[in-house]
Amino acid sequence: MGSQEGAIGIFDSGVGGLTVFRRLVEYLPWESVIYLGDTARVPYGTKSAGTVVRYARACANLLIERGVKMLVVACNTASAYALDALREDLDVPVLGVIEPGAASAVTSTRNKRVGVIGTAGTISSGQYERAIHRLAPDVQVFSKSCPLFVPLAEEGWTEGDVPRRVAREYLGQLAEQSIDTLVLGCTHYPLLKGVIAETMGNGVTLVDSAESTAGVARDMLGAAGAGGHNAPSYQFLVSDAPESFARVGKRFLGCDIEHVEWVDC
Amino acid sequence: MGSQEGAIGIFDSGVGGLTVFRRLVEYLPWESVIYLGDTARVPYGTKSAGTVVRYARACANLLIERGVKMLVVACNTASAYALDALREDLDVPVLGVIEPGAASAVTSTRNKRVGVIGTAGTISSGQYERAIHRLAPDVQVFSKSCPLFVPLAEEGWTEGDVPRRVAREYLGQLAEQSIDTLVLGCTHYPLLKGVIAETMGNGVTLVDSAESTAGVARDMLGAAGAGGHNAPSYQFLVSDAPESFARVGKRFLGCDIEHVEWVDC
Repeated sequence: MGSQEGAIGIFDSGVGGLTVFRRLVEYLPWESVIYLGDTARVPYGTKSAGTVVRYARACANLLIERGVKMLVVACNTASAYALDALREDLDVPVLGVIEPGAASAVTSTRNKRVGVIGTAGTISSGQYERAIHRLAPDVQVFSKSCPLFVPLAEEGWTEGDVPRRVAREYLGQLAEQSIDTLVLGCTHYPLLKGVIAETMGNGVTLVDSAESTAGVARDMLGAAGAGGHNAPSYQFLVSDAPESFARVGKRFLGCDIEHVEWVDC
Repeated sequence: MGSQEGAIGIFDSGVGGLTVFRRLVEYLPWESVIYLGDTARVPYGTKSAGTVVRYARACANLLIERGVKMLVVACNTASAYALDALREDLDVPVLGVIEPGAASAVTSTRNKRVGVIGTAGTISSGQYERAIHRLAPDVQVFSKSCPLFVPLAEEGWTEGDVPRRVAREYLGQLAEQSIDTLVLGCTHYPLLKGVIAETMGNGVTLVDSAESTAGVARDMLGAAGAGGHNAPSYQFLVSDAPESFARVGKRFLGCDIEHVEWVDC
């Protein structure tokens, strides 16, 4: 496959970003989208800032070579560590998932107590907290990293006893902080929405960055491409194991993925 | 740090191989050892054969440049996929963990029913089964991949309710196969020995490849270096996040790791 001028480029460390892809297609159905999953180097969430920046640059460059007009960094960890570097490097607009997620959280909270969960990298970067405080300095933020949520979602263990107990272990203390809003600060976490909601209780609104990010992308691009005559196309690229991406990705996308191309990035 | 001529080189995708390092030092206390953890690309267990071979070659070349006299592939997935390629590439002896683990299993079993657990990659490669059948064609092998065991061990959740339930989920069926020997076919799994033993019941011997691999290394090298006047030295290299390696590695090694060097491999 060659380049596809004018598509939206989106990348993630693996399959998780498909939750963002899905919302993008829903919100901007006339846009073509190229998705890149860096499955050879997944996960990013446990790796250092320097390494994540290096990997994010490689992903971004590959998508730029394919002629994308906008870059969506679907991975929270890459958004936390690499967004500034990518914005400096690139001539196209670069959108991460943290700012939109933070904005949604600020809109959602009534009691000004917000929880944020994510990978070790995202949480230790403090980026959600900073983004929330830029918008609303008086909001109190309670953060917690939940490393096992990613392998649980990848393994497809999203319901039942094991994820429920893992959720209780990670979120037990957070559930006692009287927060009214919880940011799912990792693209894998929407798959665990059920057990997370159950653990946090009824009064807590879960904010899914995927949705808010797609909303911001729509605001940025406007309806310029709507009503065009070309049918949009979707491409899926991975740096390893296309078959496994297609299989696991189905759970994230909610439908079959027909063709996945291997790329060396 | 420069090269260290004549040391044993050992690599793993991350910290797991420290269980092998520990046994090597115990069995060959007069040998110097260089350990490399490919923490920038961990885990290997979920990645494709081609990608694992590429990473294993990079690790091996780095250790060869440091002058090692022997290479131990501590990672089961890398042993499953890359051992032949490395043996072809290199002039030093290359030892994996699968053949020693298979030999121990064959020695241990009385009823000729052996279980093998490992990563998705190790199990789907079928290498343990082949290695066992080369030694004892009449042994029946029952295999099961247990992907969540690695993140559980890395997270330090090795006891209690969550690992116990995960173990029951993965091993429930295996426990009904009347096996008398179970190979822990991943260097992370010895940390979960407690819950694995509990789930499998009293009659099942757990084979830890770390121990058998160190035994084979001792047989290969002999006592040539024993009684020498030079004190052995130990070096730890990682491709990402040295501090986190030192912290998590402590659990695997059973003692502090003082200096960890970052390398680009």
